[in-house]
Amino acid sequence: MGKRTDRYILLIDCPDAKGLVAKVSTALFEREVNILSNREFVDPESGHFFMRTEFSGTTNHDELLDALRHMLPDSGNIRLAEKCKKRLVVLATKEPHCLGDLLIRSAYNDLNASIEAVIGNRVTLGPLVEKFKIPFHLVSSENKDRLDHAMEMMNIIKTYNPDFLVLAKYMRVLPPEFVAQFRNRIVNIHHSFLPAFIGANPYKQAYERGVKIIGATAHFVTDNLDEGPIIDQDVVPVNHRFTSVTMSKAGKDVEKTVLAKALDLVVNDRVFVSGNKTVVFD
Amino acid sequence: MGKRTDRYILLIDCPDAKGLVAKVSTALFEREVNILSNREFVDPESGHFFMRTEFSGTTNHDELLDALRHMLPDSGNIRLAEKCKKRLVVLATKEPHCLGDLLIRSAYNDLNASIEAVIGNRVTLGPLVEKFKIPFHLVSSENKDRLDHAMEMMNIIKTYNPDFLVLAKYMRVLPPEFVAQFRNRIVNIHHSFLPAFIGANPYKQAYERGVKIIGATAHFVTDNLDEGPIIDQDVVPVNHRFTSVTMSKAGKDVEKTVLAKALDLVVNDRVFVSGNKTVVFD
Amino acid sequence: MGKRTDRYILLIDCPDAKGLVAKVSTALFEREVNILSNREFVDPESGHFFMRTEFSGTTNHDELLDALRHMLPDSGNIRLAEKCKKRLVVLATKEPHCLGDLLIRSAYNDLNASIEAVIGNRVTLGPLVEKFKIPFHLVSSENKDRLDHAMEMMNIIKTYNPDFLVLAKYMRVLPPEFVAQFRNRIVNIHHSFLPAFIGANPYKQAYERGVKIIGATAHFVTDNLDEGPIIDQDVVPVNHRFTSVTMSKAGKDVEKTVLAKALDLVVNDRVFVSGNKTVVFD
Amino acid sequence: MGKRTDRYILLIDCPDAKGLVAKVSTALFEREVNILSNREFVDPESGHFFMRTEFSGTTNHDELLDALRHMLPDSGNIRLAEKCKKRLVVLATKEPHCLGDLLIRSAYNDLNASIEAVIGNRVTLGPLVEKFKIPFHLVSSENKDRLDHAMEMMNIIKTYNPDFLVLAKYMRVLPPEFVAQFRNRIVNIHHSFLPAFIGANPYKQAYERGVKIIGATAHFVTDNLDEGPIIDQDVVPVNHRFTSVTMSKAGKDVEKTVLAKALDLVVNDRVFVSGNKTVVFD
Repeated sequence: MGKRTDRYILLIDCPDAKGLVAKVSTALFEREVNILSNREFVDPESGHFFMRTEFSGTTNHDELLDALRHMLPDSGNIRLAEKCKKRLVVLATKEPHCLGDLLIRSAYNDLNASIEAVIGNRVTLGPLVEKFKIPFHLVSSENKDRLDHAMEMMNIIKTYNPDFLVLAKYMRVLPPEFVAQFRNRIVNIHHSFLPAFIGANPYKQAYERGVKIIGATAHFVTDNLDEGPIIDQDVVPVNHRFTSVTMSKAGKDVEKTVLAKALDLVVNDRVFVSGNKTVVFD
Repeated sequence: MGKRTDRYILLIDCPDAKGLVAKVSTALFEREVNILSNREFVDPESGHFFMRTEFSGTTNHDELLDALRHMLPDSGNIRLAEKCKKRLVVLATKEPHCLGDLLIRSAYNDLNASIEAVIGNRVTLGPLVEKFKIPFHLVSSENKDRLDHAMEMMNIIKTYNPDFLVLAKYMRVLPPEFVAQFRNRIVNIHHSFLPAFIGANPYKQAYERGVKIIGATAHFVTDNLDEGPIIDQDVVPVNHRFTSVTMSKAGKDVEKTVLAKALDLVVNDRVFVSGNKTVVFD
Repeated sequence: MGKRTDRYILLIDCPDAKGLVAKVSTALFEREVNILSNREFVDPESGHFFMRTEFSGTTNHDELLDALRHMLPDSGNIRLAEKCKKRLVVLATKEPHCLGDLLIRSAYNDLNASIEAVIGNRVTLGPLVEKFKIPFHLVSSENKDRLDHAMEMMNIIKTYNPDFLVLAKYMRVLPPEFVAQFRNRIVNIHHSFLPAFIGANPYKQAYERGVKIIGATAHFVTDNLDEGPIIDQDVVPVNHRFTSVTMSKAGKDVEKTVLAKALDLVVNDRVFVSGNKTVVFD
Repeated sequence: MGKRTDRYILLIDCPDAKGLVAKVSTALFEREVNILSNREFVDPESGHFFMRTEFSGTTNHDELLDALRHMLPDSGNIRLAEKCKKRLVVLATKEPHCLGDLLIRSAYNDLNASIEAVIGNRVTLGPLVEKFKIPFHLVSSENKDRLDHAMEMMNIIKTYNPDFLVLAKYMRVLPPEFVAQFRNRIVNIHHSFLPAFIGANPYKQAYERGVKIIGATAHFVTDNLDEGPIIDQDVVPVNHRFTSVTMSKAGKDVEKTVLAKALDLVVNDRVFVSGNKTVVFD
């Protein structure tokens, strides 16, 4: 990374210490870049410091990062991201609403990301994807070991070199070996207000419990099903007239909106993972 | 119940059958009362029929009920309620927000119910209750068996002849023997979006899970803690800057609003219990 | 309309009178159809009665309508609609989010309606529409009188014989002569929480006023811009960090969800127009 | 202000310039105080910079302020507030819900403020206030010039030396001479989603327009009725079954919650006024 003139995002997280903001902001000031926005947070429980700074201006990035590394604790993470479109690969199964929404957003530049490819474990969504001139790969899971199936997908995924994977109602559990290769870079949409209704058929569970609000949760995928760090959640009211079918229909709108909002945060480098939680500088 | 001229609410629930609405509405039409509103619902799963009709006008109620009983299935429930203030006894522990809200609503006729008495298992809320010239009974649970304590409260409750009991952040579990005496007539406010975070310290649980929305649930009390029929729920957004303490503070506003809204529905005879769910004609 | 065996919706509105529910429900009971749901409302201000009954079963519809007409007031409207897909023609200009959302819903049977054609006053959205194998008509308004332009569109519209027109961010005012031909059958999405921010650039107006919530409104089109009967509204929180551009981006999700929800109500015959308001049996 | 050891809030606003965050945070770092949270914002339109820093630790405040004044633009505002309870005087008329809510919050330390006195232009709310052992002053407006009446209140207000005035459903317009004495320090709750339904009877206006959502707005009072900087807003859904009376009832819960939330922000020094908008560091 040499000299540049565009917009950049500096992402720092490290154990908290006195003067971190002073040091970082002075380092940027001395290099005469123009800070556009600045967000910090210290987790009171873990004592960890998070900072996101958006700036424009010409500076030598290698030199800046080097200087920052010398002034911050050894165990910290420092990253300088160019403000640019991220590359996504989407996994899906049969339902078109989340995938369709992402395809239209991507096609019309409403998402700061490009969908490089879609992988389906069923053929259903192929025609939808192809309307948008995006490669669709069918990787059937039939008669395959879970790990073999996942690694078959991974081989395809790697050819696209994506920044993030998106599970747009992909209805199979991914094995730890797969998840490990995209740690904190796989975004899933779960069709319930987690931690309520973990697992299969959340709308059926919600119907049976007689809840008056249903919801959706976008989260990073970890090895524990539906238990990864939550990025965003939203809800919609229901009542006794709803069946599990009409709950599912009402829930779809929340699912696609929450997934898109979470992705918008993620691809704009606004989300830090902090233990099993997220710090979101929205 | 003889002839009356005011407003009444007819509540019917029974196994569904063809012609129920026709029969009931014709029975009312023939008696020349004025139907003000009419709501029906058939639960598609249980095949149970629910109907709430508000009417005004002079008719012989005993005769009307008798006629309806002859035309509806044997196993049905028919009830004719005068549209009048209900009597409440409130149980509370230490937190003033829900109780205070109910006291002010009751004092200023914003709740179609009168608070006849408040029972506390601690002395804390006595002074607040007494401001409103309402009897406060301290029934300490210290050194008492759970059932003995509950029945000591029940003895006091019965002297007030309440229509409903309200648990306004009453922080102890009630034994089945107590609950049985007010079946589907005890309204509790739980400080989470059930079924998420059942039991103690839901805000701590919510904080630890890193959710982005918290909520509150008003429900009827059954023998299973936090598992009774849900009457109403609402939520409020939170983010990484919230601690379990500030979540609790934000949640209080939802708790008191949801409890008051649920009570408003209950005391206006708008809530049927249907299995472990509610049918709410709001 | 002769004998049928499927699902039907009976829609009645007339001046209120005693016994209307009894008469209608008895008429249906006598014909042995199976009532699936029943909703009524009497507007307390106008004294007008609205009733929507969904039923299944074999009966002679002409005979039923004839019988109902004899028992209801002369000035009433009685309509028996088959529960079937409605035909839509969509008008749009440049923004793809609402149109794209409708195209995907329609393609995947998530909307009880088919999009027969899309008319654009600009060429922008043609490629999106054509992905879905739906006719796109460009009717440029350049150098045309407003009425001439509208009537040119009307000529095309009529060839598709639509039940409803949808303005999916169609950014021109339609003349009264056009509106008159689809009275209470044109659904518009306005990108503000009406009646706030009527007219052009509502997000700019919202930004300048410094509101903390923005919204969208779906309404029937009348001769008065943005003043027709409101079908549905929803909102999304904003804060000082939003510009009119990011408000617009956040608002798009509400716009498309509200439009789709309103259309879902309209095409399922759940919306009555009552003066300048709607009665929505959701 | 000499040496202190508690928690403080540093509030800065000035024209934006490069290095402001670096300068301020370095000044604090050099004085070895402990920064608890830090929030900044630059208004892209006005180019104005806002910063709120909460810190603990021993330092000489006069010296710190002096140093900051030398390093920031001349036209800036710098304020160092002790984190302590603010003093409020509340004005009200007849409705008890907002006032009652504030009284209970204040009595139970749920609001970082003390209600020093309540002034009513009617006698109605006196008994409620007196339950809480807070002075109630009746200042009738009958047969009085608007300005005379306002200044009679102001004379009483000044004896309490309040930080902020709260209009808790005070139903009269205050003259500019009154407002000028508490510039950006009078918080009003308006019972609509501003800018919709400015002025009298917003629920009646909302009912007549047939909106599907109603709301409430807390704002600072300026000379233009209902047009001051908005601090917070919230909404609640309604439908065709609501009358202006039941809208008003539903709206009360939003009114009191929004007012309390706005006050919580204001008394914790989290709100800057920026032109006719607010910057809220929540």
